[in-house]
Order: sequence, then C-alpha cells, then structure tokens
Amino acid sequence: MAPPNSTLRIDPHRFQRTFEELAAIGTTLDSGVHRPAFSASHQQARQWFFQHAVSAGLEVGIDRASNHSALLRCGSPWSPTLLLGSHLDSVPYGGRFDGALGVVAALECLKTVSENHLVLGTHLEAIDFTDEEGYFVGFLGSMALSGQLEAEHLQNARGARKLFLEKLAELGLSEETLFLARRDPASLAGYLELHIEQGRRLLDQEVQIGIVTTIVGIRSFRLHFLGRADHAGTTPMDRRRDAGLGASAFALAARDLVLRDFPGAVVTVGNVDYAPGAFNVVPESATVSLEFRSDDPGRLEAIESALLAQAAAEAERFDLQLEVDGLDSTAPTRLDKGVQETIARACEILDLTYTFLPSGAGHDAQIMAQICPAGLIFAPSADGASHSAREFTSPEDCRNGTNVLLQTALLLAEEGI
Amino acid sequence: MAPPNSTLRIDPHRFQRTFEELAAIGTTLDSGVHRPAFSASHQQARQWFFQHAVSAGLEVGIDRASNHSALLRCGSPWSPTLLLGSHLDSVPYGGRFDGALGVVAALECLKTVSENHLVLGTHLEAIDFTDEEGYFVGFLGSMALSGQLEAEHLQNARGARKLFLEKLAELGLSEETLFLARRDPASLAGYLELHIEQGRRLLDQEVQIGIVTTIVGIRSFRLHFLGRADHAGTTPMDRRRDAGLGASAFALAARDLVLRDFPGAVVTVGNVDYAPGAFNVVPESATVSLEFRSDDPGRLEAIESALLAQAAAEAERFDLQLEVDGLDSTAPTRLDKGVQETIARACEILDLTYTFLPSGAGHDAQIMAQICPAGLIFAPSADGASHSAREFTSPEDCRNGTNVLLQTALLLAEEGI
Repeated sequence: MAPPNSTLRIDPHRFQRTFEELAAIGTTLDSGVHRPAFSASHQQARQWFFQHAVSAGLEVGIDRASNHSALLRCGSPWSPTLLLGSHLDSVPYGGRFDGALGVVAALECLKTVSENHLVLGTHLEAIDFTDEEGYFVGFLGSMALSGQLEAEHLQNARGARKLFLEKLAELGLSEETLFLARRDPASLAGYLELHIEQGRRLLDQEVQIGIVTTIVGIRSFRLHFLGRADHAGTTPMDRRRDAGLGASAFALAARDLVLRDFPGAVVTVGNVDYAPGAFNVVPESATVSLEFRSDDPGRLEAIESALLAQAAAEAERFDLQLEVDGLDSTAPTRLDKGVQETIARACEILDLTYTFLPSGAGHDAQIMAQICPAGLIFAPSADGASHSAREFTSPEDCRNGTNVLLQTALLLAEEGI
Repeated sequence: MAPPNSTLRIDPHRFQRTFEELAAIGTTLDSGVHRPAFSASHQQARQWFFQHAVSAGLEVGIDRASNHSALLRCGSPWSPTLLLGSHLDSVPYGGRFDGALGVVAALECLKTVSENHLVLGTHLEAIDFTDEEGYFVGFLGSMALSGQLEAEHLQNARGARKLFLEKLAELGLSEETLFLARRDPASLAGYLELHIEQGRRLLDQEVQIGIVTTIVGIRSFRLHFLGRADHAGTTPMDRRRDAGLGASAFALAARDLVLRDFPGAVVTVGNVDYAPGAFNVVPESATVSLEFRSDDPGRLEAIESALLAQAAAEAERFDLQLEVDGLDSTAPTRLDKGVQETIARACEILDLTYTFLPSGAGHDAQIMAQICPAGLIFAPSADGASHSAREFTSPEDCRNGTNVLLQTALLLAEEGI
C-alpha cells in the first residue's frame, strides 16, 4: 500500500521563481553570488527569506546565533520538530546553488504541506544556519544550536576576530549569546538537507539523486614560514632566508604526498600571504592556509602527521622557522542508516534513480547528526563546479531534489525515525 | 707631490651629531626610520636639511621636482657645479643609513670646504633627490633633473597615482612642473654619491671602501597564473587547475635557474597574491611579483627569456593560463672610469683599503651618469642588512666614507674630470 501523501508534489513554477528571486541578492557580474556571512547581501538574503515565509503564512524566528527559521506547526502541541535546511551565506564570489537550494527547497516543502493542510507527527521548520561556509567560524549556527560550540572555536576564528565581534554586536549578539542558541535534542525529530553534490559522480554515473552515507572530516591549519627580510638586489641568492620558497616547496610537496600516499583524500593550499610583499624585498614571512579532508579518522590523523613533517622539512631546507596554528577540525561523520533508507524510499516513490555516496564537502548535516538523525540529499552538479559562479544544477534536478526532500520529510513525519 | 688640500678632513664629532639628529626624524620603535617620499616625516627631514644648511651659511633652494639643494659657491661665477648627494626618503620601515648617509656626508663636505674658505674649480651642491626609493616613481628627482623623466613613468607609478597627485599639489607642484626641473648638463661638473653597500662583500673581504664600477639593471614583471576556482573538498586532486601550484613551481624553478645558469645575478619573487584566497577554494589565480637584476645587458635579456619560458612551462604543466605584465626596466649602467680612478686616489691619500665592485642596488648615480661623469662610493654594511631597521654602518666607516667623498670632490674640483 502506498504511504499517505505519496502523490504530493511541490509547485515547480513557484519553486523556480523563488529560487531566482534569491539568486538576485548579492549577484555578481558573472551570475554567481557574493554573500559572505554577515555581509550586507547576506543580511538582505535573510530578510528576503523572512518576508517570503511570512507571506506564505509561516511563523518566523531568529535564535541567539542568528539562525533564521520559518515554522509550520502541523503536529500536535507536544510533537517534536523536523528541521529542513541549509544556509544562505556563500563563499566570497561563490555560486547561486550552494546552500541556497536547500533553504528554498525547505521553504517550498513547508508551503506545500501548509496549503494541503496536512496533519503530521512532527512540526516542520525550515532553517537557514549562520556562517556554514566559515567566513568567521565554520558551521557556527549548527554548532551553536546543537550545543557543540566551544569558546576555543571562537578564538580560532578563520576571519578577523575583531570584525566578527563587530558584526555580532550590530545584530545585538555577542560571543556569549551564541551559546544560548542550544536546543534540547529531545525537541528535534531529525534534520534533512538538500544540497548540490559539488562533484561529478552523479553526472558521471547518470544518476538523479545522491544519498550521502558519510561526510569527510576536515582539518585546517595556518603555517607560518619565517625567514629574513633582505634587499632583493644586494643579497646573493645562496645567502637568503626566503620564506616564500619554503611555502612554495610545501605547497608542491603536499600535493605530491597526498596523491601518492593517500589516494581519495584531498589537500589544498588556498592562500599564501607574503610579508612585506614588495618587489624588492626578500619575503620575511609566508603564511600558508592549509586544509585537508578524508572520510576516515585514522587517515585524517596520518595525513596531518605527514603534512606537518613535510612543512618542517621544507622550513629546514630553506633555513626558516616554522610556526603551526591548528584551526578547525571536524571528524568524519556517518549519517543515520534509517534516514538513508527513507530517502531511498522517497526516490522510489518518485521513480528517480539514486546512489549512495560519501560527501567530500562539509555540511551542517554532519553537525546536526551528533544530536539527532540526519540525512543529506544530493542533486547533480553540472561539470562538478562548486564554490564558483560556474555552479549549475538544472531546474529539473533542483525540482527532483526538492520533491525527494518533501517525500522524505513526510515519511519521517508520518512514521517516525 | 701631494695634491693641495690633501690633508683636509671632516669634523667627525659634528658629522656624527648631525647624522643622529637626522635619524631621530621618522624613527621607528626598532630604531629604523619610516620616511616614504612626501610623508610627514620625509618633509620634516627635508626641513631639517634646510635649517642645517642655512645655519652653516649655505644657500638653499628647491627645484620643480622638489629636489632640495644646499649650495656653496666656491668656484668662479662661470664655473660648473659638482653635485654631491643622495636621498632622505626611505622604504617603509627601512633603515637610518640608506640615502641619509649620503646627504649628511654631502652637507659635511660643504661645511668643511666653506669653513676653510677654499677656492675651487667648481661650485659644490649638496642635493637630496626626491623619491629615490620609488614609493611613487623610482628615481623621480634625478630622472626629472637629468631630463629623462617621461609621461609614461608617471602613468606607471608603483604607488597610488591619486595620492601622488595630491602630494604634489600640496607642495604647489604638478606632473607638468616636474619636467621643469631639468638642468643643462653643461652646468654640471659631475655627481658623487656616498652610500652604504647594502651587501656583505666589503665586510667579507675586510675592505674599507667600495668603488662602484657598474650598477645593475633591474626588470620587474607581474605574472598572472590563471586556473579554475573549485571546491576544495569535492574536486579530486588530479582534476584541479590550481593556480597556486603554478606560482609555487615557478618561484622554486626561477631560483634554481638563476643559481645554475646565471651566477651572480639575482631573482626574487617578493609577493604572490592568491584569489579568491580562501581555505576551501582551489585558487583561481595567483599573481607573482617578479624582479631580477644583472650588471650585464645581454645577461639581463637572457634571464628574462629563460624566466618567461619557465613560467610558460609551469603554467602548461598545471593546465593554467599565463598572462605577463612588464613593469619597470632599467638598464645596467657603467660608471665613469676617470671618476673611479679619482676615488681610488682619494682612498690612497686617506690610507684606506678599497676594492672595485658592481652595485646590486639601484641608485641616483645611475640616472645622473646619463648626463655627467658620476661616481658611487660604498661604505661597508654590517651583516649586509638593508631596507630594514637592522641596517648598520659603524661611525668610523661612515667617517671614512665621508672623507673619501670630500677628497674625491676636491680632486675633481681642482683638476677637472
């Protein structure tokens, strides 16, 4: 027997219109979006989200970590809440799908349930988490809500801490209030997130939906190579202590090391900051932004050891000092098996092809998985492009993903997890 | 027979006192100086120079490129003028000797000649050239005075052009007036400059005075390595187009190439600017600040070809595009043989050891050498430090250098060049 409501579908035209309205906020010349956390365009996107939710008759609310929520009470007063969400912030000059798709999809699901006056076993909440991309602190909103935020995470803010505090103050928040966003896990039925794959596996396999099994662990470091500033004209090549050479040699060696010894894992030097940074002065310091990922805890540890040893060796080779700052560290996360199977059932109801796969990107789902059953649904990314204006997922794939989110939510809300 | 005035010496105590007075202007916490061209501290140093010259009974004057001069008329009315000078501006947070030593030494020479009431074959002028360090336009003052300044140099100002125009306007100058600073070469008997070596050759050879034979040519470029921004978690290592890897490989290869194929020449990657520069985005572009120097025009050309070919090869290796912007280019300059020999005679008169050597740094002397016989005298640099607060030359070495400047000027003024 088909489950109740299995014929319910979103409104594809309304969904598309809503998605495009959002993509116009913080849009860049190349049709990407620039919405770093707490920027003017990010705040504008969040206001748009609220206006949209209120127009649809939903309740809205902001918690003390600035997470923005739209709520549809469709259970009994004492029912738990099933969260559907993602994030409206973007990396600097990123794409229009990353995060935004999941929030627009969550909104569309609530509207569809609302206009059909369904009574379910849980309430539904569409949530936009704060700073998923870590412009200041990675997964800030979901870490705070799930009670995993610690003072240490705020100290090691990737971005400028001063600016972070200013931005919080503008919103009437502070580092202290963030901890008040914590929710009682017993009040939550689960968390579901629709996201673009940001890779090319679904495309290569010609599959319509990805069901995520595990999410990679991520560690990031700042490596400071420290040498000596000298005149670029009068200091012979063999008597320099050029910090830039240590950083360059490390970037190349790190790539070779991971390709050779840790296939499947990834390492990235996303930035190097030189000082003083003049044409005619030998670099005194070069600060490397290092990040690496693996879906296996033991390998993550082994990669860290190998990379830090490599950095020390390159520093020694060029007669430099090395200082290491550990920044973020998230463990690999296995997602709930029951939720994975429910997503698969939703795909079957919708007659969509699907596959199970790990995620190479971090998501709020991995944070939420620590306190409730969590599921992550992938829509295919054209060309695998991500964190760039070239991001693209077809309207049909976006629609399919949103219907999977809706059907999964209905199955979970009706049957429990 | 000893030349007349060969027993004349500077006043070492007055010289030292004067030098320290100047070093206190724009002084930094680490005992360096911060006097970028046209900054408040730079203007203050120039006022100090004038007050000092006037107290000593010298005439003073400013030309239309803001070069500051103190004049001692000690020839006949129709005699040409022998210029002694250097510059009072510094690189940002530089040292107290670079440039300043030459100006203080020139002032001391004029005072010594003045108080001894000598009559010479030339007038003597102590000159402080504008913006030698190129905070806005490298060698601005000497380029203008020597008639080599072109509109193009002003367009390619390294610093902010808007600020440059504002600074000129504050002084009642403009880009147009700069060209009016040009002097008739026939009015000049020559140019002599005392400067710190900014290297460690004199120190290593235990020699007291360096006599510069040639000044290196310098070329600078911006190399743009252009790849593709991708998600640092979901893009496999072997499918990336990481611009940072191209820049890193180039920096290492450039060093190896020059060490191997062009011994004695220098190449520096002083800065690399990554975009977007985030931890979790594969770098889309990396812009390299490249500079190289040689005292031989043919080698300079050969180094350029080899480095640009290397950059193209590294771009290809990492599947990147390469764009090349040529910036400054100064040719190697051979200094006047007769002046070199006169400096050597001055050293012999003073019983100081000396050696002939090329200069790895650019100096106003190379600009002046285009229109009159020019000489450059080096005093030893402790530890070879330069363009940093660690710059140091002992009081004795400063005094020796100033006496060489005095004796050379007297020989040239008495005997002609």
